[in-house]
Amino acid sequence: MYELGVVYRNITRADRAAADALGALGSATVHEAMGRGGLLKPCMRPIYPGAQVSGTAVTVLLHPGDNWMMHVVAEQIREGDIVVAAITAECTDGYFGDLLATSFQARGARALVIDAGVRDVTTLQAMDFPVWSKAISSKGTIKATLGSVNIPVVCAGMLVTPGDVIVADDDGVVCVSAARAVETLAVAQKRESFEGEKRAKLASGVLGLDMYKMREPLAAAGLRYID
Amino acid sequence: MYELGVVYRNITRADRAAADALGALGSATVHEAMGRGGLLKPCMRPIYPGAQVSGTAVTVLLHPGDNWMMHVVAEQIREGDIVVAAITAECTDGYFGDLLATSFQARGARALVIDAGVRDVTTLQAMDFPVWSKAISSKGTIKATLGSVNIPVVCAGMLVTPGDVIVADDDGVVCVSAARAVETLAVAQKRESFEGEKRAKLASGVLGLDMYKMREPLAAAGLRYID
Amino acid sequence: MYELGVVYRNITRADRAAADALGALGSATVHEAMGRGGLLKPCMRPIYPGAQVSGTAVTVLLHPGDNWMMHVVAEQIREGDIVVAAITAECTDGYFGDLLATSFQARGARALVIDAGVRDVTTLQAMDFPVWSKAISSKGTIKATLGSVNIPVVCAGMLVTPGDVIVADDDGVVCVSAARAVETLAVAQKRESFEGEKRAKLASGVLGLDMYKMREPLAAAGLRYID
Amino acid sequence: MYELGVVYRNITRADRAAADALGALGSATVHEAMGRGGLLKPCMRPIYPGAQVSGTAVTVLLHPGDNWMMHVVAEQIREGDIVVAAITAECTDGYFGDLLATSFQARGARALVIDAGVRDVTTLQAMDFPVWSKAISSKGTIKATLGSVNIPVVCAGMLVTPGDVIVADDDGVVCVSAARAVETLAVAQKRESFEGEKRAKLASGVLGLDMYKMREPLAAAGLRYID
Amino acid sequence: MYELGVVYRNITRADRAAADALGALGSATVHEAMGRGGLLKPCMRPIYPGAQVSGTAVTVLLHPGDNWMMHVVAEQIREGDIVVAAITAECTDGYFGDLLATSFQARGARALVIDAGVRDVTTLQAMDFPVWSKAISSKGTIKATLGSVNIPVVCAGMLVTPGDVIVADDDGVVCVSAARAVETLAVAQKRESFEGEKRAKLASGVLGLDMYKMREPLAAAGLRYID
Amino acid sequence: MYELGVVYRNITRADRAAADALGALGSATVHEAMGRGGLLKPCMRPIYPGAQVSGTAVTVLLHPGDNWMMHVVAEQIREGDIVVAAITAECTDGYFGDLLATSFQARGARALVIDAGVRDVTTLQAMDFPVWSKAISSKGTIKATLGSVNIPVVCAGMLVTPGDVIVADDDGVVCVSAARAVETLAVAQKRESFEGEKRAKLASGVLGLDMYKMREPLAAAGLRYID
Repeated sequence: MYELGVVYRNITRADRAAADALGALGSATVHEAMGRGGLLKPCMRPIYPGAQVSGTAVTVLLHPGDNWMMHVVAEQIREGDIVVAAITAECTDGYFGDLLATSFQARGARALVIDAGVRDVTTLQAMDFPVWSKAISSKGTIKATLGSVNIPVVCAGMLVTPGDVIVADDDGVVCVSAARAVETLAVAQKRESFEGEKRAKLASGVLGLDMYKMREPLAAAGLRYID
Repeated sequence: MYELGVVYRNITRADRAAADALGALGSATVHEAMGRGGLLKPCMRPIYPGAQVSGTAVTVLLHPGDNWMMHVVAEQIREGDIVVAAITAECTDGYFGDLLATSFQARGARALVIDAGVRDVTTLQAMDFPVWSKAISSKGTIKATLGSVNIPVVCAGMLVTPGDVIVADDDGVVCVSAARAVETLAVAQKRESFEGEKRAKLASGVLGLDMYKMREPLAAAGLRYID
Repeated sequence: MYELGVVYRNITRADRAAADALGALGSATVHEAMGRGGLLKPCMRPIYPGAQVSGTAVTVLLHPGDNWMMHVVAEQIREGDIVVAAITAECTDGYFGDLLATSFQARGARALVIDAGVRDVTTLQAMDFPVWSKAISSKGTIKATLGSVNIPVVCAGMLVTPGDVIVADDDGVVCVSAARAVETLAVAQKRESFEGEKRAKLASGVLGLDMYKMREPLAAAGLRYID
Repeated sequence: MYELGVVYRNITRADRAAADALGALGSATVHEAMGRGGLLKPCMRPIYPGAQVSGTAVTVLLHPGDNWMMHVVAEQIREGDIVVAAITAECTDGYFGDLLATSFQARGARALVIDAGVRDVTTLQAMDFPVWSKAISSKGTIKATLGSVNIPVVCAGMLVTPGDVIVADDDGVVCVSAARAVETLAVAQKRESFEGEKRAKLASGVLGLDMYKMREPLAAAGLRYID
Repeated sequence: MYELGVVYRNITRADRAAADALGALGSATVHEAMGRGGLLKPCMRPIYPGAQVSGTAVTVLLHPGDNWMMHVVAEQIREGDIVVAAITAECTDGYFGDLLATSFQARGARALVIDAGVRDVTTLQAMDFPVWSKAISSKGTIKATLGSVNIPVVCAGMLVTPGDVIVADDDGVVCVSAARAVETLAVAQKRESFEGEKRAKLASGVLGLDMYKMREPLAAAGLRYID
Repeated sequence: MYELGVVYRNITRADRAAADALGALGSATVHEAMGRGGLLKPCMRPIYPGAQVSGTAVTVLLHPGDNWMMHVVAEQIREGDIVVAAITAECTDGYFGDLLATSFQARGARALVIDAGVRDVTTLQAMDFPVWSKAISSKGTIKATLGSVNIPVVCAGMLVTPGDVIVADDDGVVCVSAARAVETLAVAQKRESFEGEKRAKLASGVLGLDMYKMREPLAAAGLRYID
């Protein structure tokens, strides 16, 4: 169970340079670099296409239909953070709109990842403040119940600890634990460095079957060709 | 149960000026102005981004896989109307395409809101005829069974009475009862008038915690800060 | 049950000219031309708007979380094909990204239709390689289990036989059996040829009620107008 | 939009004898007798098998996560009523348990139909108080916001007016408008009266093809038999 | 695409003894015996608990909301068959009730597997006629459009060919191709024969870790124990 | 992100007496006693009705389609435990059947709570080994990938720490943190102690409106009665 009614002010953020650099690699490459881990559920979608960001997580736990803690988390944001919002139960209400986005952006936040809904999406796109959410909804919320800020939360099925790195783009959202950020960056960059050469080969008509030497294991597994 | 096989020709439309003015305020603001009411379920999504409209509802009740009544409702459209289509059971078929849109547009309709699917969406966007629907589907329909026109219908969970005001944008669709349109407009405009000042304050770094004087009630509710 | 571990190298593709020409008519018109048949479920959505293609199906059967056979099917692609990928169980993993797209495109494929997820969608759009899928997900796959290539598969609820014509656009995906491609094209073109005239009439304010002579059958069915 | 904060004390209940007699016919027969109308969505399921009831509807409109009005509606229940509860937005919380059931039962209610969740289902079965709901959930609710009692509500997609007849069994829930209860009963009873003879014929091996004289229309529609 | 409007009268049913014997082994064991294949999606649930059957498939393809072909397929049933019903699009209507069950049972059918809804479930249980479906619904159907009988169909995601063996119990529904029925029975029986010994060992407290000799491969895979 | 490939052998279980006593109070009462917290999502349903248990959590993290770690967790079970199984991604496969249940039961486990599917449900009921799951499926799993045992996991949306108390019945599953078990028991028992008196009053016809003194706050909130 979650601890309610607390705000942790001091969190250990992941290495800043690694957190910043991971964004350029994209969620798919970073996910692979972690041994295919860290992904939030694919129901988390960007509210507009084309955004690609990374940053350090500050977390907030909210109750269904209640966005009071959004104002509390705003104060804990530092430059380069991404707010990760979890809800204690299923909810698609619009917890966040252009006013909160203005505040978050002023505090240095790069994005919001929320396991619920948001609104004012046209304005958010104009502001260049990206959000990954599972819903878009005009449905308003109240301000009545305490949640928490900067506790470990589960967002879209993934455990996110304050200070973890969040990487988000059109393919989805991935969470890298702060302790593994530097190592994951190295693995991801290495992985990325091979992509150009592979792409060129494949573009020239070379088959993955040959490039990855798959013909033998496929035959060993029993694959039969029928003319 | 719905009354079937009837077309009400005379409906009382909401105040025209209010119906027209509500659109500029957007679904979220109007929904808040009604005390957080009137929203259709968030499964209702625009078929293309960026449209923002309002108008008076003419309603049509259809059967699953049957769009016969779409042609009947076309005749009842007046300039400034939005057609609201409900189905007697779950269906995602494509009830509406570019030909019907041409007819609706020629009659003065501003948009369609339908608790089912539509098709020809690329053409609809080119025509600038917005639709809010829960599906996009090529699936065709037949013309075999009577529904009704201009009876109260339930669309995406909301009761819509002919003549009500519909406000729709990228955030969703909201229904304002005709009797409350003028009053809701006033409340929404007042609400809107405060937004610019708030936005400026938040953009300057002022926190909602202070602007909305939330620190005291949060402390009273037991919020603890831990360093 | 599916036959596993086989690759059929020789398939009978639909008439090339018909396969190419069907694309311009769009999925809705082609679906109607087949007596409202051939549609894949509407959960199949384009990963970016505006693409409209047709081609001959090469099929691949995959296992959940395993994209090994994607490399096997690449070799069977010929110019003008569309790859249709089915999975033996529900899965939203990202089976396909920019590297495979580069390979498919180099082999002459026009698109991918997959009853699962894909990733690198921003790059796929930049490459102009359209995909219709039921999910977008960074989630990676392994290469461990044999499926099959060019067997009849069920993709999003529709039986697709290798060589069938696939037509896909923003409205959805439709499958035309190879044997009926020429005939379907003729019916669809005839249907299309009437559209311009109808559109002009409707745009001028003529009602479908009159153009389609519906008033009498509606009255016969018992429709009542109430003033 | 719904009218909030009101309790209508005087409602016109359907003919008592008809309301009572419809239950024995079952939801499927009654639905057919209305020309295939009146059904709530099939997500409405009994919390335990075998219950079959009918009664007159008293309605209550609730807010998500708030069951305050359940206590208000209790006072409006009369012998032979069934409470129909609608929620202003999607919710699966457990609005109702054994204490409320005790109260409803003491007031004469025969069942609850609720477009949300309930709890204490083991006890409810022991009490022989049937519920049709879309969820079972321990999730508790608060008592904070006004809804309404005895206004027309939409429950699981169907418009239910206070005083309508509700028929519910293992197949689902159907609503008969008060004005049509007597007529529907007559049609349903007539329909039912033919069932015994039909069942005997079919049990003896006579085919529906022959009993319903379908062979000719099937052939006319083009059905071909292939040996 | 499906072939419409045809009834194949002569189908090759799987070996009768194998078809009959597979039922006792249950869907899970048979599925494993096929290398983890043949399963219909888990949305297919029994309408009452405890039924366990097997038989040879006769198939029927239906249209949404139309059960006309149910009467056509009845004539093609032989003793020991199970009717497998597919729909050309998503539908949860109640296609089948006690009258059709009486007819099917009189013709020798053992069960119905349908990718839609059924009704009269209380009576079906009393008749001991099991059904696996994805919905229970009172919603009635019409008799207007031709489908087909005894063509290969896709039911709940699985390709079922007439004459295949269907095994169904509380765990789900599995399809065994007629050609593999005898071989699958042998594998399944062998698998089953080891179960008693394994169960006894596990019941005595022996761990699967030791019985299946998993400790070494787990260690090789890197499993670490932390005290 | 989860830590993979580890088994924590020493966990701190909640107070045994409290863990045992909480079961009799049921999930709804315990959830209320925690201030309406601790509930797993309502998709977690018992595989058969009537079971009511409590115990201390041992946790296992599994991969989609892979139940290898089920054998690893079996060794960590002690008398009075309930196994809580989480999956790293959405999966409805049948991870658990009668053989594993035999082993778990022999080790002293009282139940399984799993965010996926199980099979052999008829046998599990006969064995009196209850399971709460989100699916029933014959679908088999492989044994190939390491997860972890006794790490904090998220199961059906709730964070479960090894040693926490699990309470499960027909209403759902609730998790009580080990540290709060004794206190929660006291609150729940106190809550329960008032129920008998309330039930008697309500059964005699006293209204909740009067028993809970709601008439005044309802009037203050603006409730209007209309005759």
